[in-house]
Amino acid sequence: MSGHVSLGSDGDARVAVVTLSNPSKFNAMSRAMWRELREVFARIQASRDWHAVLLRGEGAHFCAGGDIAEYPDFRFDADRLRAFHEDEVWGGLQAVLDCDLPIVAAIGGHCMGAGLEIACCCDIRIAAEDAKFGAPIARLGFPMAPREAQLVARVAGAASARELLLEAAVLDAREMKARGFLNGVLPAPELMAEAQRRAARIATLAPQAARLNKRTLRALEAAATVPEPLLASAYDYADSAEHREGIAAFLAKRPARF
Amino acid sequence: MSGHVSLGSDGDARVAVVTLSNPSKFNAMSRAMWRELREVFARIQASRDWHAVLLRGEGAHFCAGGDIAEYPDFRFDADRLRAFHEDEVWGGLQAVLDCDLPIVAAIGGHCMGAGLEIACCCDIRIAAEDAKFGAPIARLGFPMAPREAQLVARVAGAASARELLLEAAVLDAREMKARGFLNGVLPAPELMAEAQRRAARIATLAPQAARLNKRTLRALEAAATVPEPLLASAYDYADSAEHREGIAAFLAKRPARF
Amino acid sequence: MSGHVSLGSDGDARVAVVTLSNPSKFNAMSRAMWRELREVFARIQASRDWHAVLLRGEGAHFCAGGDIAEYPDFRFDADRLRAFHEDEVWGGLQAVLDCDLPIVAAIGGHCMGAGLEIACCCDIRIAAEDAKFGAPIARLGFPMAPREAQLVARVAGAASARELLLEAAVLDAREMKARGFLNGVLPAPELMAEAQRRAARIATLAPQAARLNKRTLRALEAAATVPEPLLASAYDYADSAEHREGIAAFLAKRPARF
Repeated sequence: MSGHVSLGSDGDARVAVVTLSNPSKFNAMSRAMWRELREVFARIQASRDWHAVLLRGEGAHFCAGGDIAEYPDFRFDADRLRAFHEDEVWGGLQAVLDCDLPIVAAIGGHCMGAGLEIACCCDIRIAAEDAKFGAPIARLGFPMAPREAQLVARVAGAASARELLLEAAVLDAREMKARGFLNGVLPAPELMAEAQRRAARIATLAPQAARLNKRTLRALEAAATVPEPLLASAYDYADSAEHREGIAAFLAKRPARF
Repeated sequence: MSGHVSLGSDGDARVAVVTLSNPSKFNAMSRAMWRELREVFARIQASRDWHAVLLRGEGAHFCAGGDIAEYPDFRFDADRLRAFHEDEVWGGLQAVLDCDLPIVAAIGGHCMGAGLEIACCCDIRIAAEDAKFGAPIARLGFPMAPREAQLVARVAGAASARELLLEAAVLDAREMKARGFLNGVLPAPELMAEAQRRAARIATLAPQAARLNKRTLRALEAAATVPEPLLASAYDYADSAEHREGIAAFLAKRPARF
Repeated sequence: MSGHVSLGSDGDARVAVVTLSNPSKFNAMSRAMWRELREVFARIQASRDWHAVLLRGEGAHFCAGGDIAEYPDFRFDADRLRAFHEDEVWGGLQAVLDCDLPIVAAIGGHCMGAGLEIACCCDIRIAAEDAKFGAPIARLGFPMAPREAQLVARVAGAASARELLLEAAVLDAREMKARGFLNGVLPAPELMAEAQRRAARIATLAPQAARLNKRTLRALEAAATVPEPLLASAYDYADSAEHREGIAAFLAKRPARF
């Protein structure tokens, strides 16, 4: 198992700092990290110490996606694939969505796949000018899971979701700002200070108001449920040739043949 | 009681001009003004004289929010707070939303809180370059009511709603144009002439088509209802320490301590 | 009957090229073309030959709207009007929406009314700098049909839908890019090459992943149904004076008097 999700604090004692850390893989999310993400946000939710959360990656990158080296272990069996997406991945994302404290995401470098999804669960997203956004899993031969696709389409907009998923497009920070996904874009050296400034400002505001506002917005979004038939068949592709070829080609560092 | 909402006309006899007027408070909405807003739009809806509506504030500002001086009278009792938001505020906003005529909002200066919500009920929003948009009620220790939050999230977008509510951010006209909230931004001296030009242009178009288009768009949006449990508990915070502190600090012109 | 919708291929054998062709009317959609659009996309859906679709207009324009010369034949009877919108128009649009292959729209010149709706059914929209977008049917005295209005409001955004419908606004490509409707804008001479490049890139990606991603996004959008009462009364305006005047004035090349 590689990688960790850590909880700490920085200059401001009221701001919880969550760090995605798997630096040799640009902070790609391993299965262990998805479980830790859930635990960390459960601890934040249970605590009364914090007024805001700052979520970042270790070093210059936010998160480059999933840890693909682990994929051959479980992705080609529909039941195990479902458990991965519905329990591990969605368990982590849901814990972030359920957090009653405002969350500021500080996004540098790669923000791809899992990183994009985690960013979608935050309330305020600011990025370094050099940040890159994408979900190029069509190169890996598999689609986005329904709940995750709903999340990305809701937050990034359906037009951007289609470009990211269907064309495997990678968009830069300026473009994602223009499309309404980012609240601000800054030179990379200023990113962390600006994120801390925003989180510290939030921490001075009324916490009950923040909690009730987040609950309202979450309840309004939850009213748009994912249709059951979509979930029932979502992982039937597990053992397909295309899925196997995409993962195999990536790991062999060769182009996939679809 | 202070402030008025007036109905009149300007150069073009087919354009109803609605003016929010409470100039000593940047046109902040008093309870009397919410009731007048509803009555004015009921009169417009009942009339056959008009083809379009221009909605503006008196003088250089659109509307700076609610009239906070009135808040200690009723905000700390859940039943009275519910009646204020669900009957008075939503009664006014619903009357604007229900108007079958196209509404052009001409937005200068402050467009905050109640002003932002009223702007969200209009069809075309144009603003002066110096206009400022926000809903900094987290400074006042209370959240946005569910129907109002749904309205703002739908029209301004969820990402902007989160920044405005959770960070108490104040955004300028250029930023709100980039985020898709505004249809146009102009130098302040040109704002009224452009709003009149747009309303006059609408007034030459087919009124039945406008009425049916507005009914269609309204029916599609009404399909997204506000969950009942959210409404049932929405005003439980009325008598909380945080709510009392926020209002008290504002009226005493001192920083709130949350 | 005038106009055709053709299916062919260009440089890349995996890219189906669909061309809207009615060049003397800037490719306005005749009733025959709506039926052909449905047939062409049914053939694409039944085939295994293609990996992506490029949709364009013949010559410099995408599509200028409906073929208004045909309108006096059927628009003033509610049953025939309903059949036109629900069967012919929506039959064509639904076939495009149901296509499991990613669709790139290459939009030059006029993209109005029916053209705007067809563009909304595509996944990636790129336009020439000189492209113009609108749905000025308020000049013709009639509203947009409910399913079509839902489509345009969902893809172009409710604020743009209101400006296009209620003000009969015509917006340029730069503005539609800023509003998130377009994925890219290019000088007109580069439009087709860029559309082909994007379609060819999509054609190298995993087709099963594309099909499943499109099914997921379609199922999520289909969860927002059009209320039945809206559909029941949607065409009651057929025999109204305003509707007749709008069409008559257009065909007589004189201003309508509403």
